[in-house]
Amino acid sequence: MRQAPYELYYWPGIPGRGEFVRLALEEAGAPYVDVARMPGGMRAMASLLRGEGTGLVPFAPPFLKDGDLVVAQTAAILAYLAPRLNLVPEDDPSRAEALQIQLTIADLVTEAHDVHHPIASSLYYEDQRTAAKKRAESFTKERVPKFLGWLERVLGGRGGVHFIGDSLSYVDLSAFQIVGGLSYAFPNVMARLARRIPLLLALHDRVAGRPRVAAYLASDRRLKFNEEGIFRHYPELDAPGSHSGSAAASRRSAPVKRARK
Amino acid sequence: MRQAPYELYYWPGIPGRGEFVRLALEEAGAPYVDVARMPGGMRAMASLLRGEGTGLVPFAPPFLKDGDLVVAQTAAILAYLAPRLNLVPEDDPSRAEALQIQLTIADLVTEAHDVHHPIASSLYYEDQRTAAKKRAESFTKERVPKFLGWLERVLGGRGGVHFIGDSLSYVDLSAFQIVGGLSYAFPNVMARLARRIPLLLALHDRVAGRPRVAAYLASDRRLKFNEEGIFRHYPELDAPGSHSGSAAASRRSAPVKRARK
Repeated sequence: MRQAPYELYYWPGIPGRGEFVRLALEEAGAPYVDVARMPGGMRAMASLLRGEGTGLVPFAPPFLKDGDLVVAQTAAILAYLAPRLNLVPEDDPSRAEALQIQLTIADLVTEAHDVHHPIASSLYYEDQRTAAKKRAESFTKERVPKFLGWLERVLGGRGGVHFIGDSLSYVDLSAFQIVGGLSYAFPNVMARLARRIPLLLALHDRVAGRPRVAAYLASDRRLKFNEEGIFRHYPELDAPGSHSGSAAASRRSAPVKRARK
Repeated sequence: MRQAPYELYYWPGIPGRGEFVRLALEEAGAPYVDVARMPGGMRAMASLLRGEGTGLVPFAPPFLKDGDLVVAQTAAILAYLAPRLNLVPEDDPSRAEALQIQLTIADLVTEAHDVHHPIASSLYYEDQRTAAKKRAESFTKERVPKFLGWLERVLGGRGGVHFIGDSLSYVDLSAFQIVGGLSYAFPNVMARLARRIPLLLALHDRVAGRPRVAAYLASDRRLKFNEEGIFRHYPELDAPGSHSGSAAASRRSAPVKRARK
């Protein structure tokens, strides 16, 4: 049995990209420390980002430290961890397919971020709202349906239960997270899409009900989606509510259905 | 020896993301068919994108067909191909590091694209020029220096010759391509950065001089950078020319130094 815990480094306070790694570690029951959320952890993370640690200096969080090895980039972390956590089959084709789906999920995550930061990550949302509104129209009408439609189709082509092989993989966990994130950020968009993605929604619920995941979700280790993260609920970027009726309404601001935190 | 050629599928006419795969296949001297550039190839690509082939339906080109296996997503294709082409070391840590650097290069490629398409890929550049100009300021002043500075530092930390291990890897080939792409799209930005990235520029030149790469670059299989692709030379998005002098000049349009195709 493995003794030394994995060290996960990610911004405290948001689920963000770190959450995809956390879900894999939690589902596997793997020992890990969520370093930046511990006392002194932010200093430790900053030190590694300055290159004061072993291994390859990370470009950005999240990164995982496993002994002297440092792996950054969410999909690279998962590709490294999954065989060790029994969250991907052994064969090369399965691993290539898992990585391929994960990278498409990663693209969706990047686009979900860029909806509220279309000009620059270094600027406030409030300083790029006009562009954000335009990007949101394309994201919610074209991109989300395309990404989720593709995931639904892939899942359906594999029997509807698991994305890879005949048991749970890290890809299933990541799909759970994006369904949750998009439902938080774009509830109206997701309500409209629901009947087109029954398998994805069922997968989301199955994952949420797995004993270790359920215990994790109920714990304070699980961070809530919020407006500092990647999936942000800005009602003006969501589709209009269903009572708005006409197609033209989608060009107007969405009704505020939930207070912005 | 392998007999059946790999099949690469990518949009004809632009180097784009397909080029990262092409460079690996060319350097390795691997047999491959660039399908969409052959007669009838676009129909074949469209058919696979509709899900009429074996394997996982690709979300988007590029994708690689190896027998019945279909792998999409550039970094996933390279992670699958590299061990077969002798373009990555055998051990897990090296492969994790290679994927991590490749994914950071992939992020840079996405941002290089989004500079000219900050609102939507489905709109023309001309319809998002205002946002593009703003995004370009952040991209050229913050992001390019950060990405290339990180790559330079990683390369320097490994002796300055290869990113991974002690021989050429697919990461070196991809770094060659982004240096070329950025130099094409943002010549003024790259001229200013040159003295800060000597190792990357030297790597670029070494890769260009490798016999198989040099033969490839001189062939008509190599597609030129152009304004349909990811790295586009729009002078108004580049930094001002060096003769512009003052820092304030960087807020004005860059002088047109090269005709836009």
